[in-house]
Parts: sequence; structure tokens; C-alpha cells
Amino acid sequence: MARGRFITLEGGEGAGKSTQGKRLAAWLEGRGRKVLLTREPGGSPGAEEIRKLLVQGATDRWDPITETLLHFAARRDHLERVIRPALAQGQWVLSDRFADSTLAYQGYGHGVDRGFIAALERAVVGTERPDLTLILDLPVALGLKRAGGRRGPETRYEEMAQAFHERLRQGFLDIARQDPQRCRVIDAAGALEAVQAKLQAAITEKFQADLT
Amino acid sequence: MARGRFITLEGGEGAGKSTQGKRLAAWLEGRGRKVLLTREPGGSPGAEEIRKLLVQGATDRWDPITETLLHFAARRDHLERVIRPALAQGQWVLSDRFADSTLAYQGYGHGVDRGFIAALERAVVGTERPDLTLILDLPVALGLKRAGGRRGPETRYEEMAQAFHERLRQGFLDIARQDPQRCRVIDAAGALEAVQAKLQAAITEKFQADLT
Repeated sequence: MARGRFITLEGGEGAGKSTQGKRLAAWLEGRGRKVLLTREPGGSPGAEEIRKLLVQGATDRWDPITETLLHFAARRDHLERVIRPALAQGQWVLSDRFADSTLAYQGYGHGVDRGFIAALERAVVGTERPDLTLILDLPVALGLKRAGGRRGPETRYEEMAQAFHERLRQGFLDIARQDPQRCRVIDAAGALEAVQAKLQAAITEKFQADLT
Repeated sequence: MARGRFITLEGGEGAGKSTQGKRLAAWLEGRGRKVLLTREPGGSPGAEEIRKLLVQGATDRWDPITETLLHFAARRDHLERVIRPALAQGQWVLSDRFADSTLAYQGYGHGVDRGFIAALERAVVGTERPDLTLILDLPVALGLKRAGGRRGPETRYEEMAQAFHERLRQGFLDIARQDPQRCRVIDAAGALEAVQAKLQAAITEKFQADLT
């Protein structure tokens, strides 16, 4: 059986990743693909337990290096127990966040050494890097305004400062510049349907042979 | 105030680390030192939560790389929140296990790349390496027999195979050979009091000026 495709959705707060992810999954299924829609941190039973440690509690609960290690621990479990087996069975995996989020948040955002994060990515992800990464980009003020509509126990990241979110945005754009083969920056400031159309176009362009 | 000293106790199962640690702490306090006795995984509120993920559940709950990352995440929290502040206040820190345990268990025992573990140690521990590491060494069969007396929910490691424990023992001895300035191998096969005397002698020899 042909290996599935691995697509990740990345971007800051309020970019619409989870809504767009659900729509993309339905769209791909409509084209005959078996799709696994997942998200990070979490996505496997073990990783979901690590997620609880990451998303709840005070903003300064963990130092940025501890946080980086917890994210990669959760990612390793997610990759080994869920993503890799699904790809091997021919499923298309669509993940709301993956390794680029750690580089953007902990590296560009919190100043953890980017070479160290790259070494973690090589050891943890290895050859299982995404085939396509869609980076949903929008102005920080708009993203935070949209994210402000959501409230719950998981607001730790949203409460961080505006300057942090600016570094994060520039980080994602930098990642895209450095890996143009894998990454596509999608303007996410428009209406939901318009953004969805751009995402579908990027996927169709990348996997033309697979989707016809 | 003079920085305290950082001493770690290492070794396989049943070597007597926790009993010897309590005795060493009392002995050092009797010589006028303020002592913080701690242990890994754990030792800080955050690290204790990570510990729960590590020590409970099935033997194959985590893949060895995930396990390595969880250990270093817990260690970073322990170091930043407990060990470093205590040393800065002049306390002597005595830790039952530290980074050598991850290199021995996950590296030598489970085959995780040792260069990767060394990179993690550099990023997480940095210059805060132990001043003295006491490696309690004894034959595997004897250690497992002694450890067999303990039963509780935390038996995951004890249940692993004999061959694993042999690799572990050789790993600790290898670590000691490669860092003779920091490490002392202590024969832990004898009676409790005899082993304690050897540990005290090693500490006295290392910190002569500090303990008189």
C-alpha cells in the first residue's frame, strides 16, 4: 500500500487552524482519501497526558527548555503511536501543529537555542517530516482578537504578551523562507471560505498526481 | 555566601542509594552542612508530575526517546526550581540519581544515541554538573534480589530483563572511566555500614578543605 501524505497546519493564535483542519479533512475524504485529523500537543493517549502538563497552570509554570522537552516528548509519542502507523496504512495525516510550532513558540518566541531545537527535531522526527506545511498567517492584533472569543482552562498561551506573538509570526515566516519546498504561507486574514479555497489550492498543487 | 556542593548517587536497582543517601545527609548535617536530599525523577512539584508519567504503567508505555525527553524535562525543572537555588544559598545538594541515570538506562540500556543524550545534558544541565558522583556498584543478581524486597506501583524498571541490567551496570562503569575527576565507583555488595564508610571516605577525600 502506498504511504499516505503528511500535512501540517501551523500559525499563531486565532489563525483558524482547527476549523480549517476539519474542513480540509472533509474535503480530502470527499476526494476518496482516508484522513486522520489530529493535533498537538497531544494526539495519542500518552501525548494527551503530557498536554495537560503543558496547557494548564500558570504561564511561568515551566522554564522554556523544560517546555521544549515536554513538547518533543509528546510529539515523539504522537509520531510513533499514531502518525507513523497511519501513514504506513496509506492514510493522509493532517495535524493541527507539529514541530514548527515548537521552533516558533519556544525558539523564536522564548529564545531557546534554535540549534538545540533542530537537534531535537532530527532525533525525534527523523525522516518523518511533513510533506507539506501550511502556515496560516495573519496580523497579530487580528489573531488575538479572534482567539479572544475562545475561553477555557487552556488560555495560557493567549495571555502572553503581544511582543511575543510578533516574534512568533516572524518566526513562522522565517521557517517558511528557509524551507520553501515544504512550506506554503497562506494569508488567513480573509473570510473562512476564501482561506479554505487557498488551502485546497495549495494541497492540490503539491499533490497533483495523488488527488486526480 | 559560598556556593554549596552538588553530589549525586548513581547505580542500578537495589544498590541502596536511597538508604545511603539518608545516612549521608545526616552525616553531613552532623558536620555543620545544610543539606538538601532529593531524588530523580522528581524533586520539584513539576518534576514529580512528570515522574508519575514515567514510573507508572506498562513497561513499553513510552518509546526510549520519549522516555529520555521526559527524564530531561523533569531534570530541567528540578535543577531550575530546586537544585540551583539551593546551591546558590550554600546548601549541599545530595541527589538520588541525576543525568548519568538517563545515559545508563536509556543510552546503554535501551540504545538511545549517546551523542543525543550528551547534547541534551549540555543544553539542560550546562555548567551545573555534579561536583562528585558516587556510583554504587554491585553484581546484577544481588541488586535485583535486594530490589525484589520492595513492591509497589513503581516496579516498571525492576521487571525489565536481566540483560538490560547488565548493560546498565557496564554503562555506569563506563561513565566512571570516562569522567574520573567527577566519579567514584563504590563497591556496594557489602554491609550497609561498610558501604556508608566508603561513601563518607570518598566525600571527605573530595572536599577535604570544606569538611574540616
